[in-house]
Amino acid sequence: MTRIVMKFGGTSVADPEKIEKAADKVVREVEKGNQIAVVVSAMSGITNKLVDYCSDITPIYDAREYDTVVASGEQVTAGLMAIALQKRGISARSWLGWQIPIICDDIHGKARIEEIKSEEIEKRFSDNEVAVIAGFQGVSLRNRITTLGRGGSDTSAVALAAAIKADRCDIYTDVNGVYTTDPRIVPQAKKLKIISYEEMLEMASSGAKVLQTRSVEMAMKNNVNVQVLSSFENEIGSDLPGTILTKEGDIVEKYVVNGITCSKDEAKITILNVPDRPGIASDIFSALSDDVINVDMIIQNISKDGTKTDMTFTIPRSDLHRAKESLLKLKGIKEENIISSDKIVKISVVGIGMKSHTGVAKAMFKTLAEKSINIQAISTSEIKISVIIDEDYTELAIRALHSEYGLDETSS
Amino acid sequence: MTRIVMKFGGTSVADPEKIEKAADKVVREVEKGNQIAVVVSAMSGITNKLVDYCSDITPIYDAREYDTVVASGEQVTAGLMAIALQKRGISARSWLGWQIPIICDDIHGKARIEEIKSEEIEKRFSDNEVAVIAGFQGVSLRNRITTLGRGGSDTSAVALAAAIKADRCDIYTDVNGVYTTDPRIVPQAKKLKIISYEEMLEMASSGAKVLQTRSVEMAMKNNVNVQVLSSFENEIGSDLPGTILTKEGDIVEKYVVNGITCSKDEAKITILNVPDRPGIASDIFSALSDDVINVDMIIQNISKDGTKTDMTFTIPRSDLHRAKESLLKLKGIKEENIISSDKIVKISVVGIGMKSHTGVAKAMFKTLAEKSINIQAISTSEIKISVIIDEDYTELAIRALHSEYGLDETSS
Repeated sequence: MTRIVMKFGGTSVADPEKIEKAADKVVREVEKGNQIAVVVSAMSGITNKLVDYCSDITPIYDAREYDTVVASGEQVTAGLMAIALQKRGISARSWLGWQIPIICDDIHGKARIEEIKSEEIEKRFSDNEVAVIAGFQGVSLRNRITTLGRGGSDTSAVALAAAIKADRCDIYTDVNGVYTTDPRIVPQAKKLKIISYEEMLEMASSGAKVLQTRSVEMAMKNNVNVQVLSSFENEIGSDLPGTILTKEGDIVEKYVVNGITCSKDEAKITILNVPDRPGIASDIFSALSDDVINVDMIIQNISKDGTKTDMTFTIPRSDLHRAKESLLKLKGIKEENIISSDKIVKISVVGIGMKSHTGVAKAMFKTLAEKSINIQAISTSEIKISVIIDEDYTELAIRALHSEYGLDETSS
Repeated sequence: MTRIVMKFGGTSVADPEKIEKAADKVVREVEKGNQIAVVVSAMSGITNKLVDYCSDITPIYDAREYDTVVASGEQVTAGLMAIALQKRGISARSWLGWQIPIICDDIHGKARIEEIKSEEIEKRFSDNEVAVIAGFQGVSLRNRITTLGRGGSDTSAVALAAAIKADRCDIYTDVNGVYTTDPRIVPQAKKLKIISYEEMLEMASSGAKVLQTRSVEMAMKNNVNVQVLSSFENEIGSDLPGTILTKEGDIVEKYVVNGITCSKDEAKITILNVPDRPGIASDIFSALSDDVINVDMIIQNISKDGTKTDMTFTIPRSDLHRAKESLLKLKGIKEENIISSDKIVKISVVGIGMKSHTGVAKAMFKTLAEKSINIQAISTSEIKISVIIDEDYTELAIRALHSEYGLDETSS
């Protein structure tokens, strides 16, 4: 007997008809004698609409009320999925975050799961009942609804899989796996059969939208076998495999570069003519940190005359306005000292093979130079190199790098 | 200090802009130093959409899952109303049925409120916090979401007003009070300044859509001062009074007829050639009762030859299909014995003055006869007379009766 968590994303449950198709997939697994917990997202478009309702009233809203509003989307899908399963003769019931409960901290809007009390759900597995869980939501110890941040249903699914010790966590989505890069940009992009948690984590946090970053962290920490599958291609009878996330040690053939991602979520700020004295960087980055703004890459130019310098750094694009306000509070920084741009993109190459191979960065810089693409900033980790470039060069850069690292699919 | 429950219906909270207007009304009452609990419906149209989602999957759904789905509408509005109040500098928080809790029985889809644990809400009144309560919903002792039936937010408001001993329960809606009849049919219809609980109950249960029937019963039982007001006309500075519901004893001038309603929620079934023997009626109505179908009016024709008779009765239109199935299970009743029609309407005249006046029924029958309208069935209560007529005559009948009983507004 296999215990499986099946998670369906927004496009997979976009309307009652799609919910019924998803239910058919659940039936298939139940009929194999498996114990199934289903995790559902809101119908696609609904969460955006609910967020807009809040923003229409005020841009600065109480995150506790925001959570109450947006969590309703998954509640609807959970109920409908239970109805669709019952129609198919399957015993099923919906579970909301507060009913299980999925206990979270009270950082509303991006809460973290602290504990899932899954005893009741597990007990009902023995009566062949399918548990349908509203993704994205939990409950705080103050008995308020919390949500886990955009894409949080992936995290719900993985956390649940860890809690009930599921053999597998299948993430059904609108793509049929994880690709070497966005196939809309590079048609030759290949689907990866297998990827390590570490690579997936770097890819997710640098722009790949397949899985929420936190869900990958959680899968890695708890060794959850995650599989990314298509809701639409894996029709009955054609079990096209998706992409499996696993431990690095389980991967035999380690590619130097396994994926190329791009993120348009960054913005760049340059502060001109900063006094070149010890402590100035500390003042600037403390101010941003106090306002909970994450700085990603930093470049400090060499001081020309020893008294003034320029400093450039990148931050999340959504924090650009707040970051400027934060900087203007500092002594000696005025409006005219600050230049900012959100016309940039972060391109990252990711691969666990980098740990043991050199020359990856060199190949990257050479390839971009050959295409006359100016690198504005660089950052690296053990298995990732990221550069900031002008956003007009996004596709050109990705295609050139994809080819350079030998990722283009060759017709077989 | 006055404690007020303010209830806003679906059209009053139809979008973020309308929610803000409703919030302005709440602010006005808070600024007078009153303690306020707000009860909100779902945005207009949302509940229908959610019901449709369920029906799209299957016509026969688990009412527990239906409740989970449809209760989400009020959840959204409650959060948004709290956000709108906070924007106006008012301390406010949303409360869902399970958070208060509003404990209901587990007759899902039309649950009854058993207890409202309002201590926490009342405690927070002293900190000037406005409680925003999601209407229509509660929670069962099994920890499942329950809903109170369509229009249930009125009942939520009145039950809450009783629980917190509110001085007043103001129901804001898209009409500015209770009228002698539907002003779309009779433009001369008058707004009633005051109406007894008993009359309102008869009017609500015979087609007037202003208030859910159960909310009126509950107001009557708990002596809640209910006021029906317009969300749109009572703008700041123009406190147009609505209609006040009160005890019969508090009404000085008792009109013989205070209102005329029509209901299109009925259907008629005639069973032809039923054996005219003792116990046959019992068999038929037991069968319907066993299937939880309420029979309203019954007419048994006089048996022509002493062996066979016809029997006619009315039932809720939504139960027509089930009623036929129920009857066909009985011995001796076949498809060809059953004639049914949903092209009928129930017209009722209501007034507490009927208790002490005679001739109301006579005037009704005479007026309808003068217009050549055939009466198909009659039922009466102490303060109401209802007749079933062909639905084509609806407007004609209402206009004639409205005039006959002197209800037409005279220009003053």
